[in-house]
Amino acid sequence: MKKLPLKKAFMLLEPGPVILVTTSAGGKNNIMTISWHKVMDFTPQFALLTGPCNLSYEALVKTRECVIAVPTVDLSRKVVRIGTCSGSDTDKFEKFDFTPLKAKAVQAPLIKECLANIECRVTDHVAKHGIFVLAGVQAWIDPGRKERGTIHANGDGTFVVDGRRINHRRLMLSKLPPGV
Amino acid sequence: MKKLPLKKAFMLLEPGPVILVTTSAGGKNNIMTISWHKVMDFTPQFALLTGPCNLSYEALVKTRECVIAVPTVDLSRKVVRIGTCSGSDTDKFEKFDFTPLKAKAVQAPLIKECLANIECRVTDHVAKHGIFVLAGVQAWIDPGRKERGTIHANGDGTFVVDGRRINHRRLMLSKLPPGV
Repeated sequence: MKKLPLKKAFMLLEPGPVILVTTSAGGKNNIMTISWHKVMDFTPQFALLTGPCNLSYEALVKTRECVIAVPTVDLSRKVVRIGTCSGSDTDKFEKFDFTPLKAKAVQAPLIKECLANIECRVTDHVAKHGIFVLAGVQAWIDPGRKERGTIHANGDGTFVVDGRRINHRRLMLSKLPPGV
Repeated sequence: MKKLPLKKAFMLLEPGPVILVTTSAGGKNNIMTISWHKVMDFTPQFALLTGPCNLSYEALVKTRECVIAVPTVDLSRKVVRIGTCSGSDTDKFEKFDFTPLKAKAVQAPLIKECLANIECRVTDHVAKHGIFVLAGVQAWIDPGRKERGTIHANGDGTFVVDGRRINHRRLMLSKLPPGV
């Protein structure tokens, strides 16, 4: 993993891919799969939506930090299976053969096998709506990774893989944040 | 536009496409382009993030309703251009040759040329974070539309178009909401 400028981190989540979120509480690493997230600011700031029905929620409330890892299509079966079991009785890193890497600013681990990782701190919790507000503090990317296509959940168990790219930079210049 | 069961409406937004949001305030229709949204519930409930720097924000606060329209890749240039001009001096329906259709439950219009439309009511406004919480009340889809591929913003003026689909329904059955 190589450092990615923080001002570019929002670009990993803006397209809306399915992500993994790692936490570490009580010396125990965990991973959850989530599709309900959104960019809130270029700083970067993200909103993550999850409720008290899972172990990661407890860890987010308790530790107020996490890592957002961006998986690619070659990992899609693992990503789905991670979302259908619980960290309460499963060591997900071991079960799914993922390698935890030490993060720089948070206790939660990076996932070596993912395309990118963003270390985040919880800056607010809008409990009424189940929204965690996250500030990215350090971002990493695997520049050598061959497969870079992410997946987008349709909500019915099917997923759309990234297809072709189109470029409207010239049309959008007035709206682009500096440095991207 | 044909009716789409409301319980399936979240599937239009879960993959994270760029959307258009229409409002109608003071007898004036408007459209904004937005990528910062997320599904909050299958009911369906959505979060939309926008600040007081635009006319649509004022209309959302005032009327407490809107329509989320889902454009496809053939409309991508219009979608970008809609996002770079203001409703304060532009009739965007006229300028971009979009046809407003009468909605059933809200004053804001549907966009005929889009793949789908979701009529929404604002149920909460978390002003601190610029989040509008929306409840979908009526959904529509154009079943005959040929181009159905949506676009996802990368944040730098480039976009990813929907590519191939993969099916993990069997792996995910335990987590799917009923009826999708």
